[in-house]
Amino acid sequence: MEPNVYARDCASRQVLNRIGDTWSVLIVASLADGPLRYSELATRIDGISPKMLTQTLRALERDGMISRTVYPVIPPRVDYELTDLGRSLLGLVNDLVVWSEKHISDVATARDAFDTRAS
Amino acid sequence: MEPNVYARDCASRQVLNRIGDTWSVLIVASLADGPLRYSELATRIDGISPKMLTQTLRALERDGMISRTVYPVIPPRVDYELTDLGRSLLGLVNDLVVWSEKHISDVATARDAFDTRAS
Repeated sequence: MEPNVYARDCASRQVLNRIGDTWSVLIVASLADGPLRYSELATRIDGISPKMLTQTLRALERDGMISRTVYPVIPPRVDYELTDLGRSLLGLVNDLVVWSEKHISDVATARDAFDTRAS
Repeated sequence: MEPNVYARDCASRQVLNRIGDTWSVLIVASLADGPLRYSELATRIDGISPKMLTQTLRALERDGMISRTVYPVIPPRVDYELTDLGRSLLGLVNDLVVWSEKHISDVATARDAFDTRAS
């Protein structure tokens, strides 16, 4: 069977869920220039809760997009880095970020118009 | 202030949430070739609940990515169509779908390896 993201049970839909997820996008984009520690990711991605950061890192690691390296030092140091698969997402993830930042005012204008019509 | 998707309160993060969302991606991609009725979208996007389809269509309309046309016929007919803003998402959305369908086996292999290590 051909992969088909429109089919409910196709594994590609789970993949789409993962790669389009906002926290995944921000983590992958943050790792574009090299490995970062957990605390660096937490600082860079303003507003992500520790629980959500941990969960998303784990999901990205499980899905083969990032690798996790634990250094046996005190205090423990954990680095996260893109794998080759994760790096293949960079163009896509960058496009999502750029589109989002570029079209804020288009979206805001549309919302105002919608809310005016609706009220 | 420059738009910055890493900042918690920047409107661009809301935009990213919208455009990366799986249901949004599947709706926008479904409308690539022209307008569709609600029932056509519901059939095409296997597994989407009526509630989620209605909510996502409304959010995409509010954000200016699709337009909704109601035809005064019995039974009522409602068409959804991409706006220019929505059409500017097509390349991006297509890249997300293609990546997801292409990398199923990479992700599955990574998951198996992860789950084996974890158990």
